[in-house]
Formats: sequence, C-alpha cells, structure tokens
Amino acid sequence: MSRQLIIYSPAGIVSAAAPVRRATKRLTALGFEPSVDESALTKHQRFAGDDATRLAAIHRVAQAAPAVALATRGGYGLSRLLDTLDWKLIAQSVEQGTAWVGYSDVTALQLAALAHKATGPAKPGEGVSAGFWAGPMACDDFGRDDSPEGGDDVTQDCFVEAMTGELEAVGFRTDVGFDGLDVVGRLWGGNLAVTQALLGTEHFPNIKNGVLFLEDVNEHPYRIERALLQLHQAGILDKQKAIVLGAFTEYRKSPLDRGYNLKTVIAYLRSLTKTPILTGLPFGHVPVKLSLPLGRQANLVVQGRDAFVMW
Amino acid sequence: MSRQLIIYSPAGIVSAAAPVRRATKRLTALGFEPSVDESALTKHQRFAGDDATRLAAIHRVAQAAPAVALATRGGYGLSRLLDTLDWKLIAQSVEQGTAWVGYSDVTALQLAALAHKATGPAKPGEGVSAGFWAGPMACDDFGRDDSPEGGDDVTQDCFVEAMTGELEAVGFRTDVGFDGLDVVGRLWGGNLAVTQALLGTEHFPNIKNGVLFLEDVNEHPYRIERALLQLHQAGILDKQKAIVLGAFTEYRKSPLDRGYNLKTVIAYLRSLTKTPILTGLPFGHVPVKLSLPLGRQANLVVQGRDAFVMW
Repeated sequence: MSRQLIIYSPAGIVSAAAPVRRATKRLTALGFEPSVDESALTKHQRFAGDDATRLAAIHRVAQAAPAVALATRGGYGLSRLLDTLDWKLIAQSVEQGTAWVGYSDVTALQLAALAHKATGPAKPGEGVSAGFWAGPMACDDFGRDDSPEGGDDVTQDCFVEAMTGELEAVGFRTDVGFDGLDVVGRLWGGNLAVTQALLGTEHFPNIKNGVLFLEDVNEHPYRIERALLQLHQAGILDKQKAIVLGAFTEYRKSPLDRGYNLKTVIAYLRSLTKTPILTGLPFGHVPVKLSLPLGRQANLVVQGRDAFVMW
Repeated sequence: MSRQLIIYSPAGIVSAAAPVRRATKRLTALGFEPSVDESALTKHQRFAGDDATRLAAIHRVAQAAPAVALATRGGYGLSRLLDTLDWKLIAQSVEQGTAWVGYSDVTALQLAALAHKATGPAKPGEGVSAGFWAGPMACDDFGRDDSPEGGDDVTQDCFVEAMTGELEAVGFRTDVGFDGLDVVGRLWGGNLAVTQALLGTEHFPNIKNGVLFLEDVNEHPYRIERALLQLHQAGILDKQKAIVLGAFTEYRKSPLDRGYNLKTVIAYLRSLTKTPILTGLPFGHVPVKLSLPLGRQANLVVQGRDAFVMW
C-alpha cells in the first residue's frame, strides 16, 4: 500500500520550520514517505497563509490524494474556509484512499466533511484507513524537540497502526458506573469549542445514535459546561448513544469557583441527559492521543472500568 | 409611576455584600425604591445559590412585578435555568410594567424571553419602560467603591431616563463609511459568547430585519471572529438591517497575531456580509454603557460619523 504522506497547513501559522523538518524525519523512520506542501510554512497574520493560500493547499492535497493528509497544527483558520471548500474534491480524495488526520481546529474540516457527506463510499474491510481521523498532527506529535522520537510513542504507534489499517479498536480506563455498557453508533467529535462553533450552520453534521467524543484546552469548566449545555439544549446529547470526554486541560481556576470544577460539571450534565457520559478518553491537547475514525460505525463496550471502542 | 426596584441574583455569586448596599443607597438617591431579594447574597459554588434558588428568585421577582428588576451581576448561570423558567410568569411581569435590566450573562434571560415571546403585549407610548433592557447592573454600575456615585454618571443618567420612560434615543460616534444609513428594525443582542451559546437551541430568538448589537470581554479577536462567523454561517448576519458592535475588551494579544486584531476581524466580516457593521456603541464590560430596549422597533440613522438609535 502507498505510504505517501503530505504535511500541509490548513489553519494557524507555523512559526518555525524545525518542527516540520523533525516530523518529516520521524515519519520517514516510521515507514511513511512524507513531503511538505509548498505553502505549509507561509505566513499571513496569525494564519499559515491567507484564506486563498490555505484553501489552495487543501485542494492541492486533495488532488494529490496521498495515503495520509497530516496537518502541521491547528490554531484557528478552518472556519473561514468551510463556505468555499470543494467538498467533492475532498470526497474524491477519500475515495482514492486519503486519511485526513488532525485535531483541535482540524475538527472544523472533519465534522464539516461529515456534514457535507464528503466521506466517499463506505468500503468496510481490512486495511482501509481512508476518511477522517481525529488524531495527531505533525508539529506537536512528531516534531517536538524534547523527545528523541519527536512525540509520544503511544500516540505514534496508534497512528501508524491506524494508517496501515491494523487498528481496529482502542481501549481506555473510564470512571465507575458504566460496567456492561454496550452500544453501537457512528463515532464523531473532536474539539468542543470548534464543534460548538459549527452548531446552527450547515457545517454541523446531523448524527443520531452516535458516539460523540470531545476535548478542549484553555477553557474554564464553566465554559466547557456552557458549550455542552448548548449541545444538550440543541438536542444533540440526548440523540447520542454515548458521550465520551477526552482531556480538558490548561485552564485557570478562579477564586470564585468555590468547589465548582470539571467533576461538578460532569455530574450536572449527567443529571440532564440519560445518555451515558464517559470520561478518560486519551485524546485532546495532551501528548498521549489515540487515532479515532470519524463517521465510522463503532462498538463501545465497558467491562468494569475498561472501555473499548471497536470498529 | 412606581419606582419599585428589586435587586436579585440570577447568575454568578455575589462575593461581598458591600457593593449591593452601596447600590441600594445610590439607587435610592436616584429616586428609586430599591429592595434586595432574599437570596441575592446566597452562595453555592460559583453561583448565587443553586439552580432551584436562583430560579425561585427570578420567579419571585416576576410575581412581585416591580418597575425594575435589576440583576446584581452576570458571571455564568442563566443558561442552566432556560429550560425550566416559567416564561408566562415573566410575560405577566412585563404586562404589569416590569423592566428586566442587565447585560453579560443576563443576555441569556433576555434573548430567551424574546424567543419565548415572554415580552407581554406591545404597548407603545410615552412612559413605557416595560420589557427587557440591555443596561447596567447593581454591583458594577451603582455599587462601585471607586467613585462617590458608585458608577459612571452617563450610565446612571441613561438608566434613569430609560426607566422613567423619558429615553427615546441614544447617540454614539461610529467609524466612517455609514453616512446616510437609515434603517428600521427590532433592536436585539447583548453579550456575544452568550448569544452564541443560544444558537441552535429553542432559546435563540428568530429575529429578521433587526438591529443586532454585540459586546464581549476576555475574548481574543480570533474567538470574537469565530463566534461572529458562526452567526454569519447560520444566516443571522445577512438577515439583519445592521450589526452594531459595542466594546470588546480585556483580551490578551498573542505573539502569533502578527497584525491580526479586532480591526482586521471587522474588515473580514464586512467582506462576508452586505449588512452594515457599525462600531463604537457605548455598551459592554466598560463603565459607560447605554440602556437599550430589546425587541423594540428602532430607527438607526447615521449622519457623518454620528449614529442615532431612536425608538
């Protein structure tokens, strides 16, 4: 199978070239044939090139239809492109086998692709990685200078297995109260703030009976709650088979919190919806992140505190 | 006319009693007969009492139907009450003449009231202040300890005129390019993040041909842009006669911005919608804030750089 991998920049500026160089080396060592898109290092304000440049980059990657389209990083910028993206071109790349991988702002591209049904024809079977994967990005997960491997080895191993079609399940430790849970539904989600920012627009996928996973960074628990409450009030949470929370990190507590925290937020949300809300998914703005196929039917099973997502 | 005014707490915790005491004194000096709701100083986590307590407070105020229902402060908490609020009771208070005043998190109550048509029958005419007013709050605008008046005098004068029914127009200085603008539409809006968090739910008012005003605090320009872009992609901006931006304050710039700022955000949004986007409205998390009647037909006129909103 093809190991062609293109590193491209759909969103925020890549301020230094070194992480991209390191990622290229590391991805080569992992068995891929990486190349860097010509505008990956372009700079325009806080973006990796102006809107036309980044749109052209995405379309160029789609036309090349590599095995893997790996974003350099997130930031902010994909929301600006959703109204003009050529979803047919994206769908064609998926039909030809491209896996679009990333997280954070890349959630906008991935969920909008599901909304626009740019997912290509379903081709179940071994070895198929085509589609959209919530997973690592080049700079932070393969190009870091604080580890010889440029990133976490669990993250990298999971990514390699996902891209070679070997990965058929992931496991994690959730909290108590879900022993015996066994549901089947489409796997979808990503960054909470980016997911929230699609709500009410034509770019929000209408997925019922799904397994929705969410993560976020730099958001105080009350903002995490407000966004999840909005999804609840919009009817999204009740319509899912399960909600799975990843990592919510790097927020600053307030002296006004007085015992209000992420735990009380989760307890509150559990009081609002009958949909089980699991925690502990290794995904988010943290070194260890799984690769998860978006839009695909998955089976979520919990035994004791051990949760498994199989597809 | 009645000058009865009740200070109540629908959202965040009031951590000290002194600002409420000062506000009571100041509002008395301004000619009101203020009282403090019994649970205004209740504390539960980061909230002014648990959900049941705050819900009861709002309903108690609605039943008392004072001339003015003035929130102590915002914070976060009203979103949690929207699904259980008794909108008929709110509507009855408006029919009896109550003006519900506040900003920030109170935007959730006010816009949801418009969505649920809890606005009472329209009674145009002199002296009528009943309804929902984007305007000051007790602690920050009447209870501050850094001025003898407890807050800004323009803010207080405008509030008094609004509540006595004398205020029929406000003026402000906008930027160039809108000379000759003359539109009529329903006035609505408030805090951007709170407005965004209603989108896609039954609590978001469906207002077409309106004049939408927005403000926010502690939000980086890229987040302001993302929220406004969501309103655009949801079709909201194009449906308005005008967008009027208030104050966007207290955010931290990033070294990655490289020239990206609030001005470039506004220029970008203007390139997306034909709806005029004015700036300069004295409203937001700033000392000087106007009182603006929500849901009411208003005429927005610009002469040179002088903008007037008349109702």
